[in-house]
Amino acid sequence: MPILNKDMQVCISLSGRPSNLGTRFHNYLYDELGLNFVYKAFTTDDLEGAIRGVRALGFRGASVSMPFKEAVIPLVDELEESAAAIDSVNTIVNDGGRLTASNTDYEAVAQLIAEHELDPGLDVVVRGSGGMAKAVVAAFRGAEFEHLTVYARNEATGRALAEKYGYAWTGEDPEPGHELLVNVTPLGMSGADADALAYSPAQLAAASAVFDVVAFPAETPLIRAAREAGLPVVTGAEVVALQAARQFERYTGVALTPEQIARASAFSRAE
Amino acid sequence: MPILNKDMQVCISLSGRPSNLGTRFHNYLYDELGLNFVYKAFTTDDLEGAIRGVRALGFRGASVSMPFKEAVIPLVDELEESAAAIDSVNTIVNDGGRLTASNTDYEAVAQLIAEHELDPGLDVVVRGSGGMAKAVVAAFRGAEFEHLTVYARNEATGRALAEKYGYAWTGEDPEPGHELLVNVTPLGMSGADADALAYSPAQLAAASAVFDVVAFPAETPLIRAAREAGLPVVTGAEVVALQAARQFERYTGVALTPEQIARASAFSRAE
Repeated sequence: MPILNKDMQVCISLSGRPSNLGTRFHNYLYDELGLNFVYKAFTTDDLEGAIRGVRALGFRGASVSMPFKEAVIPLVDELEESAAAIDSVNTIVNDGGRLTASNTDYEAVAQLIAEHELDPGLDVVVRGSGGMAKAVVAAFRGAEFEHLTVYARNEATGRALAEKYGYAWTGEDPEPGHELLVNVTPLGMSGADADALAYSPAQLAAASAVFDVVAFPAETPLIRAAREAGLPVVTGAEVVALQAARQFERYTGVALTPEQIARASAFSRAE
Repeated sequence: MPILNKDMQVCISLSGRPSNLGTRFHNYLYDELGLNFVYKAFTTDDLEGAIRGVRALGFRGASVSMPFKEAVIPLVDELEESAAAIDSVNTIVNDGGRLTASNTDYEAVAQLIAEHELDPGLDVVVRGSGGMAKAVVAAFRGAEFEHLTVYARNEATGRALAEKYGYAWTGEDPEPGHELLVNVTPLGMSGADADALAYSPAQLAAASAVFDVVAFPAETPLIRAAREAGLPVVTGAEVVALQAARQFERYTGVALTPEQIARASAFSRAE
């Protein structure tokens, strides 16, 4: 039966390759909570036109993914600190025509660092230097980690990211010895890189914790190997659910319980 | 349970005062036919931005109502004859970024004139000279009615409409004697004008048929009076359902049966 009505508030996502994850997460909770909202994923080849449409049609919110996280910055009215600090937006809230942008990836990573009680004394290596890596490295700096190396083949982005936060950069596969291994590349993600292990067995053997930002599958080769080695892990499934929850709260004004987030996350990932 | 997914095609409506009618009509049939479509009503204070959003987000279609039916013309790529002939658009179809506009009000009125076998020899009076009146008068001309008077207080629009199709205009309440009484004003519509009778008892007594374009309620005072007098009637409920059906067919490519249209119309009008 049709569930839509004229007064329903609309949130959308804009990404290069839409998935059903956000659509299922948000709509599941709208339904469970009886909120008159609907969420729909889109792609676009005209980001400026899409944001103009958000304004003209009065959409309540827009989630922003690759490759639009930086390009959308000049199209909004205000940046929250979470987005301004890293020049990357993943959430836009429309308050009566005024667009405020934030970055809930940053917030989610910061919250997970705290919840998993990751020790700021750990020697961290972060593999990757893309948009999500900016959120991750900024969150480690915010949590006062002192020893962090950005490992990225791309010297320009890797060095810039490391230096921005006073950390080291390397373009070479790091020697085993780092304690917290963080993967922010697509290695291990469903698709061409599904079998890739972002860190070697030797690196894993010397580590005390693993944080993989890849969200699909939840059990990447890296996470599986870390679990088998008895290491504590933080998964990309946690990141993606928590960042979606922070978006949900901004769009609707409703705070979510950990149980609600877990149910929506499970629903969003079911076949 | 959430019904939306990323591949669902989106159709919207744009109007000054959105109703749930189109939303319920279209979504009912998407559901009944198992089509991966969704329909949502919007208003806007930036029509150009809204149409840019239609393009940027790849919406499949947009239904256009008052007060946007003329203003939208320069924003589309092509006008079908139904819209070009009367300078009024109520339907936009997006074929991969190319927007084609048509007017299914015109088509619906033309089809109802034929289906109800209204005799082109009848002496017709059409009360009103707004956007919908243009569609109605054009449809009577298309059906080769010879004797038609446009009755409109507004001389500029009334006279222009009448003269465009070679008909007469009057600004005065017509003497009884016209055979087919057509109302294209809000008189009898739910709200301030709900009790208004668009034609007098004397005019009704001299008539042989009544056509009321007011869609809410289906039984306007004029339709009720005509039924009580035993006259054949064409109702606004028929117009609105048939024009929505023609939109539906353009958006989805699926032809509807009269039974499907009737079910969707009944659902759309239920409380």
